[in-house]
Amino acid sequence: MTPLRFSDECLDLLDQRLLPRQTVWIPCKTFEEVARAIEMMVVRGAPAIGCAAAFGVAMAAQDACKLGTSADVRRSSLTEACERLRRTRPTAVNLFQAIEFMRVQLLESEHLTSDDWAARAWGLARDYYRDDLSRCQMMGGHGATLVPDGVKVSVLTHCNAGGLATAGYGTAVGVIRALAEAGKLQHVYVDETRPYLQGARLTAYELSAAGIPHTLICDSAAAFFMSQGAIDFVVTGADRIAANGDVANKIGTFSLAIAARYHRLPFYVAAPLTTFDGSIANGKGITIEFRDAFEITHWAGSRVSPELTPAQNPSFDVTPAELISAIITERGLVRPPYLAGIQDLLG
Amino acid sequence: MTPLRFSDECLDLLDQRLLPRQTVWIPCKTFEEVARAIEMMVVRGAPAIGCAAAFGVAMAAQDACKLGTSADVRRSSLTEACERLRRTRPTAVNLFQAIEFMRVQLLESEHLTSDDWAARAWGLARDYYRDDLSRCQMMGGHGATLVPDGVKVSVLTHCNAGGLATAGYGTAVGVIRALAEAGKLQHVYVDETRPYLQGARLTAYELSAAGIPHTLICDSAAAFFMSQGAIDFVVTGADRIAANGDVANKIGTFSLAIAARYHRLPFYVAAPLTTFDGSIANGKGITIEFRDAFEITHWAGSRVSPELTPAQNPSFDVTPAELISAIITERGLVRPPYLAGIQDLLG
Repeated sequence: MTPLRFSDECLDLLDQRLLPRQTVWIPCKTFEEVARAIEMMVVRGAPAIGCAAAFGVAMAAQDACKLGTSADVRRSSLTEACERLRRTRPTAVNLFQAIEFMRVQLLESEHLTSDDWAARAWGLARDYYRDDLSRCQMMGGHGATLVPDGVKVSVLTHCNAGGLATAGYGTAVGVIRALAEAGKLQHVYVDETRPYLQGARLTAYELSAAGIPHTLICDSAAAFFMSQGAIDFVVTGADRIAANGDVANKIGTFSLAIAARYHRLPFYVAAPLTTFDGSIANGKGITIEFRDAFEITHWAGSRVSPELTPAQNPSFDVTPAELISAIITERGLVRPPYLAGIQDLLG
Repeated sequence: MTPLRFSDECLDLLDQRLLPRQTVWIPCKTFEEVARAIEMMVVRGAPAIGCAAAFGVAMAAQDACKLGTSADVRRSSLTEACERLRRTRPTAVNLFQAIEFMRVQLLESEHLTSDDWAARAWGLARDYYRDDLSRCQMMGGHGATLVPDGVKVSVLTHCNAGGLATAGYGTAVGVIRALAEAGKLQHVYVDETRPYLQGARLTAYELSAAGIPHTLICDSAAAFFMSQGAIDFVVTGADRIAANGDVANKIGTFSLAIAARYHRLPFYVAAPLTTFDGSIANGKGITIEFRDAFEITHWAGSRVSPELTPAQNPSFDVTPAELISAIITERGLVRPPYLAGIQDLLG
């Protein structure tokens, strides 16, 4: 399950807004098309956004080569494209990291001929994508070690931290896949994830496709199922992780972490190193994106709530590190105290 | 704002499934029509269901009088109607209390002539309704004392514990109305309340009509707004309260109570005495209704999640007494320890 596919010049993005009903691939040939696709949530999920952005930067480099061969022209086109792509979504750090990775690598390759520079750009984006895929598989392996052999667990996940949110395989869903592959998975409870229903539409779609037994529930029912003993632990993805271990993720994650703590259940976050932002001391420094109230007040274009009722739609929240049992990364598990653990990890 | 109106023989129920878009009153002339309206959620909200059921029993009594004048005929018709009405919804205790109130009173009036008995039945249902209305107003008064004069608070509420859920005025929304009337209300955050969206459709509708400033949010965003300092306390209604103070209420209430505790915010429940069930020791004894998964997997008849994905739809959850700061009743506030407080209350 992957959200993107590419040839030598074109990136196709799976339109996740139409899933699970329709499978439509949207071709992007310019960085502006990629930027719009990110803004409009054709592609979503922090690592997947990073991959798409990397290809966006590569397209900008290719365009710059068509404009002229001077290093100045290339550099200013590259800078402009990076700035445009950075403005698409504010919360997920992978976006900024992918852009910065591409920018730095391309500036270091300025000595190349135009053709070689363009080819190098595309190769870098492809590497970034392949790297993300292998990170997810490694994360899955580490996550599966959380459950002893011979034990089967039921887990709860929120939003879609799946193959669709990454280059493939997934972060939280990657851990779930690895548990299933190791014969350690009983059942998955999937939060529908209002307002955009990534759980109902995307995670359920991935788990169905993978033949993994799962049940869809309302976000607000998670605590009920915990109280019934139906859930052994919670695992989610992350959009940004601060130096102290505070995690920004889809709205509702914080609520789940509080409910897990109340029920003395472990709460795990699965995220690649690209999701860590060592430059931010704690969650207070993370910008929370507010999306259009329309996502709450309307459904399929029709108004649900009264016309005069305003709505507020924060897309993310911050789960304090104190509520997180461990962070599952491609380099292994990080446990509290997080400040030191994350420093070691990023070191 | 009332969910029902009545003449001498007919009960009109406001079809709450169509709000806020359409205002349609459904006339009910038999207890079977009332039973179906309760099952299909034309009328919902624990106290409102109780009122509707009281009129349903009255209609059964009137029908019995048409069938024959013998006490046996009346009694067996009455018993049959009460059993049918009891089967409509399992969680809200007001339903059972209203039916039992009507049944006992009518059996005690068996000596009356048919005409008088039928009139007595209707009079009893009307009294039950008026009584519920005045209970709500008293609850509002007691709730408003929670906030000192000169202070303005912002509160969060869940589902619809409003005029539409009662004879009028509301329980939790009654407290909010009373706070607004006393100049003590800053703002109301309204949980949309998946899957049936009673918050988005009904509470927002009532607050709009009353000119009370409010903002609609996703259920899972409540903890985020608490963490931002936007909410001073939570107030919800209840569907059943056990002898130890455990509260069954709309799914999601438990989650809110846990989040309020985490943020050290008071969590209040507003409920009339009819909501208390002294016969049940604690929340474990309360039957939780599971409604059709369709409410989660579909929207307006269209499927949202994949065809092979099952869903579970518990309509209620139980909030343990330990998370509740006070219960607001028509006789005043009950605070922990609840076992003694509730015993005193029910006397």
